[in-house]
Amino acid sequence: MKIGFLGAGRMGSAIAARLIDARHEVALYNRTASKLEALVKRGARVANSPREAAEGADALVSMLADDDALTHAVVEGEHAAMLGLGRGCAHVSMSTISPDLAERLTGLHAARGQVYIAAPVLGRPEAAERGELVVLAAGPAAALARCAPIFEAAGRQTQTIGQEPRAANVVKLAVNFMLASTIETLGEVYALAERYGVPSARMSEILDGSMLRSPAVGAYGEKIAKEDFDPAGFRLALGLKDIGLALHAAEAQAVAMPIASVLRDRFLQAMDLGLEDKDWSAVARAGRSPRPRRPAP
Amino acid sequence: MKIGFLGAGRMGSAIAARLIDARHEVALYNRTASKLEALVKRGARVANSPREAAEGADALVSMLADDDALTHAVVEGEHAAMLGLGRGCAHVSMSTISPDLAERLTGLHAARGQVYIAAPVLGRPEAAERGELVVLAAGPAAALARCAPIFEAAGRQTQTIGQEPRAANVVKLAVNFMLASTIETLGEVYALAERYGVPSARMSEILDGSMLRSPAVGAYGEKIAKEDFDPAGFRLALGLKDIGLALHAAEAQAVAMPIASVLRDRFLQAMDLGLEDKDWSAVARAGRSPRPRRPAP
Amino acid sequence: MKIGFLGAGRMGSAIAARLIDARHEVALYNRTASKLEALVKRGARVANSPREAAEGADALVSMLADDDALTHAVVEGEHAAMLGLGRGCAHVSMSTISPDLAERLTGLHAARGQVYIAAPVLGRPEAAERGELVVLAAGPAAALARCAPIFEAAGRQTQTIGQEPRAANVVKLAVNFMLASTIETLGEVYALAERYGVPSARMSEILDGSMLRSPAVGAYGEKIAKEDFDPAGFRLALGLKDIGLALHAAEAQAVAMPIASVLRDRFLQAMDLGLEDKDWSAVARAGRSPRPRRPAP
Amino acid sequence: MKIGFLGAGRMGSAIAARLIDARHEVALYNRTASKLEALVKRGARVANSPREAAEGADALVSMLADDDALTHAVVEGEHAAMLGLGRGCAHVSMSTISPDLAERLTGLHAARGQVYIAAPVLGRPEAAERGELVVLAAGPAAALARCAPIFEAAGRQTQTIGQEPRAANVVKLAVNFMLASTIETLGEVYALAERYGVPSARMSEILDGSMLRSPAVGAYGEKIAKEDFDPAGFRLALGLKDIGLALHAAEAQAVAMPIASVLRDRFLQAMDLGLEDKDWSAVARAGRSPRPRRPAP
Repeated sequence: MKIGFLGAGRMGSAIAARLIDARHEVALYNRTASKLEALVKRGARVANSPREAAEGADALVSMLADDDALTHAVVEGEHAAMLGLGRGCAHVSMSTISPDLAERLTGLHAARGQVYIAAPVLGRPEAAERGELVVLAAGPAAALARCAPIFEAAGRQTQTIGQEPRAANVVKLAVNFMLASTIETLGEVYALAERYGVPSARMSEILDGSMLRSPAVGAYGEKIAKEDFDPAGFRLALGLKDIGLALHAAEAQAVAMPIASVLRDRFLQAMDLGLEDKDWSAVARAGRSPRPRRPAP
Repeated sequence: MKIGFLGAGRMGSAIAARLIDARHEVALYNRTASKLEALVKRGARVANSPREAAEGADALVSMLADDDALTHAVVEGEHAAMLGLGRGCAHVSMSTISPDLAERLTGLHAARGQVYIAAPVLGRPEAAERGELVVLAAGPAAALARCAPIFEAAGRQTQTIGQEPRAANVVKLAVNFMLASTIETLGEVYALAERYGVPSARMSEILDGSMLRSPAVGAYGEKIAKEDFDPAGFRLALGLKDIGLALHAAEAQAVAMPIASVLRDRFLQAMDLGLEDKDWSAVARAGRSPRPRRPAP
Repeated sequence: MKIGFLGAGRMGSAIAARLIDARHEVALYNRTASKLEALVKRGARVANSPREAAEGADALVSMLADDDALTHAVVEGEHAAMLGLGRGCAHVSMSTISPDLAERLTGLHAARGQVYIAAPVLGRPEAAERGELVVLAAGPAAALARCAPIFEAAGRQTQTIGQEPRAANVVKLAVNFMLASTIETLGEVYALAERYGVPSARMSEILDGSMLRSPAVGAYGEKIAKEDFDPAGFRLALGLKDIGLALHAAEAQAVAMPIASVLRDRFLQAMDLGLEDKDWSAVARAGRSPRPRRPAP
Repeated sequence: MKIGFLGAGRMGSAIAARLIDARHEVALYNRTASKLEALVKRGARVANSPREAAEGADALVSMLADDDALTHAVVEGEHAAMLGLGRGCAHVSMSTISPDLAERLTGLHAARGQVYIAAPVLGRPEAAERGELVVLAAGPAAALARCAPIFEAAGRQTQTIGQEPRAANVVKLAVNFMLASTIETLGEVYALAERYGVPSARMSEILDGSMLRSPAVGAYGEKIAKEDFDPAGFRLALGLKDIGLALHAAEAQAVAMPIASVLRDRFLQAMDLGLEDKDWSAVARAGRSPRPRRPAP
C-alpha cells in the first residue's frame, strides 16, 4: 500500500520501519526532520508537510504525542493532512488520544468523504520494533478490512473493538488505567510488607506464586522493588495524562472511578516531587517515607 | 504426627482430610460436632474441647473464622487449647487473623514454653481439597522444620516468610488486598468500557491478551462480566473484614494505603445494598447504575 | 459610566439591574432577546450583538454560563465583543470560568490595547438582586480603580486579589470547592448520626452550637435535613463543573486535592442517579440507602 | 452532690475544679497522684483507687484518655470503680470513647443496678476552665435530670441527645470528624491558592467574608496560614484516633464515609512524617511541597 505516515518518535519510527520492511511505500512527515534519516535509508520518502504525506496515499497513519499534536498535523492550517488525503481513503490513528478527539475526527473526515479509524496499540517501543504490539482497531468494517495489512505489519494481534472509533481509545485508556492501578497497589503492598519485615523482592515471589501473577506484576514489581525508574519505559507525566483522559471519558458518561481518582492524586504528588520524567512505576514510592518499621507494641 | 485440629468449616475440613490421608493421627474439635461425621469416617478422632484436642498432640493446627473464634478456642477459659498443649509443641495457626493477635499469641505460647507458628494459606476450599494451597509459614526455623509434614500435606508449596509469625499474616492480608483492588479496578474498567459500547466479555478478552492477564483477572473478570456472584467463593463480608485488617496493620506502622481506603468504602456501599453474602467480586457492580450509555455529544 | 453588558441569566439580570439603578448607561446583549424586556423597561438599551454592546462603552461587563459561552461571545467571529471594545477600555468578566481562559483572555485583550479584569462574585441571585454580592477583583490597579463604580453597584464588598486576573478565578473556585466539601461532610455526618438514632435536625442544632456554626452549615444543613433540593439554588451539574475546574487548576500546578477528588466522584454518582438539576446539596443524599439503623450488637 | 472523679489530665482537672467551686464534694482518683495537688488545695479529697473514689458517691464522673484507660479504671480488677459505685447511682462518662464501649458499659452498669450516662464534651481545656464547654448528654431521662448539676458546673450548655448513651459518643465523633474535614479542606484551598499567588492570610480574609465564616475556619485558618502548630491544642495522634473511631462506628452500620477515609490517609501521612505531637491542623501542610508556583503556561 501507499502509506502517508505522521510522527517519528520512538513508537512511530518502530511502526514505520515495520511498514517499510513489509514493502509498503511510506511517505514520512515529522516536525523534526533530523529524526528521519534512518528510516530514509530503510526506504522511506520524506514529505515536507502532513498534507504532502497524505497526498496520493491509500491510507494515512499517525502516531503522535497527544491530542494537540494530532489536531495540529491533521486538522489545522493549509498544510493539514486532512486536505491532502483522497476521498474514500482512511486515516489510521494509532496515538493514545481522547475519545472526544476521536469523535471529532470521525466527523471531520466523514465530511470530506474520508474514513477515520482508531487503532491505538498495546505495548512498548521495544515490542513495536519486534512487531509484537496488539492493535485495538475500531471503525467501519470495510475500511478495517482494507487496512488489515497495516495492522499486520505493526502488531502480532489485531483486536477489533467495533464500528465506533472512539471505543478503541476508551479501551486503550482502560488498559493504561489498570496498569497504573496495579503499580500503585503494588506500592501499597510493598510499603505494608516492608514495615513488617518482608522485603519487596520476597513479596514479589509470593505474588508470583499466587493468582495475581501476571507480566505486569512481574515487570513492575521488579522495577519497584529495585527502585529502578531510569530510563523511563513510560514517563510518569504521560501516565498522569492518560489517567486524566480516562477520568474525562468517564465523566462524560457519569461514571465514577474512585480508584482512578486516587491514582490521579498520587501521580500529582509524584509530579510535585519532581518525578515527571521517571518511569511511571516511580509513583509507587512517591511520598512514602523510608523510615524503619516500628517494633511490635 | 499426632495432630490436634480446631475448626471444621470448609477450609478446615479440607485440610484435616489431607492430614488424615497423609496418615497423621488427628484429634478434631469443632463447636458444632455434627460437621465432623465425614472426617471421623475418614479416620479422625473427636475431641470434646479445644484443650482435649491439644492434649498429647505433637502439634496443634487451627483454622477458624476470625480473631474472636481463635481467641475463644485457644486462650479463654478452662477448656482453652493452650492449656492442653505440651511444652515444646507448636500451634500452627492457619486462619486469616490480625497481626496483632498473632503477636499476642506468640507471647502467650512462649510464656508456656510452646511455639506459635503462623501459617495462613492462599487458595480456595476447592484448592484445599486437592492439596493445592500455598502455605505462608513464619516462626522459629527449628519449629518450621518440625512442622514441615503438616505444610506438605496441606499445600503444594510452602513459602517461608521469616521468624516473626505476624509477618505471614501481613503477607496474607496484602494478597487479599491486592485481589480486592483487582476486582474493583475491573469493575471501573467495565463500567467505563460498557458506557462506550464495549461489552465486558470483550474487554476481558483484551485484558487477557495484555500484560495484565492473570488467573485473578481471568476468574474475577468472568464472574463480574456474567454477574455470577452466587454461591460466594469468598463472602463479601469477609472481604471487608480482611481489608479492615490490612488497614489496621498499616495504621500501626503509619502507612497510608489510599487504594485500600477506597476499597473499604466500596465494600461498605455493597454491604449497605445487602450484598454481604454474595461473592466479593459483587463489589464491582455495587452502586453502579445499569443505565445505557449516552450518545456522543 | 457607559457599560456594555453580556448575559441576562438570573445573575446577569440582577447585576445589570443594579448598574442601571446606579445610573450607568447599559447596552445589553443576550442570546435570547426575550429575557431583556424587564431590563429595557428599567432603562437598558438592547444591543444586537456582543460587538455592538461593547462599542462606545467605557467598560464591558460579562456574566455568562461557562468558558464556551464566554469565548463565543467575546472572542469568536465577526460579532465578537472584543472587536467592538475600544483601546484602553476594560472587560470586567464576572463569570465563574477557568483560570486558563482568564489567562488567555488577558493576553488577547492586551494584544488589542484593552484590559482584562476578572471579577467573579460570591453569592446567589437573590443576594445579587439586593446588591449583597462579594466581588473578587483582580487586574491592573489603575483599571480596577476605574471600574470601582461597577463593583460598588454590584456588591456590598470588593475584595482585591492582586494584579493577575486568573487568581480571582482560582479564589472563586476554591470557595465553591469548600462549600461542596461542607455539603458532603454534612452528608456523611448525618448518615452516621441517623444510623445511631440522632435525627439530622438535632445534629444541625448541635453543629450550630459548636465551632462549626456558619451560614453555609446553617443553610445547607437545613436543606439536607429536610431533603429540600427543589428548586435548585445552584444546580448539581454546575457544582460538578466547578469542582472539575478547581481540580484542573490544581493539576496545572501539581497540587493534589484528595477531598476534591472524592467530591468529584460523589457528584458523578449523583449525576448517574439523575440528580443533575437538583440543588447541589442533594449530593449529600446520593447513594446512601435510607435503611433503618441496625440494633446494637 | 458527692462526686467520685476519675482522671486529672488537663480536661479532667478543669472540670473537677468547676465541680469543687460549685460546692460539690469531690473524691479524686488519678493514676499519677502528683497531679492532684492543686485540686486538693481547692478542696478535693484524694481517693486511692477508682473503687474508693466511687464508694459513697451520688455519681461517678470519668474523664480519661481513651477506651483502654476507661476500661481499666472502671471495669477491670478488684479496684474497679464499678465495684464501688452504689445501686441506683450514675456513672457520667465524659471521655471521647467508642460507641461500642459506651454500649458495653451501659450493659455492665445495668447489671449492677447502676446507670451509665454518656456526656462527652465540645471544647478545649481553656474553655473547660471557664465553664464554657457544651455537654452532649445521653441516657435515661430521670438520671440525666439528677445529674444536671454536674453538667451545669462543667459547661455553658447541655445538649440532650436521647436515651441511648452511645448516641452522644457518635455525635462527639461526628463533630471532630467535621473539624478535621474543615482543616484538610482549608489545607487544599491554601495549597491551590498559594500556587496562584494568593497568600493564605488573604484567602482567610475572603473565607471570613463568605458563607463559610465560622469559629473553626477562623481559628484553624490562622494556625495553618502561620504554620503555628506548637503547642498542640489537640494532638494530631488523637485526631487520627477519633477519625478511626468515627470510621469504625460507621462501619458497624454499613455507612461509607469517603471524606473520613481521605482524612485517615492524610493523618497517617502526617504521622509518618513525625507530626504526631503537633496540633492536628498540621495535617493541612503534611506532604505538600513548598515549591513556588509555576508560571502561567
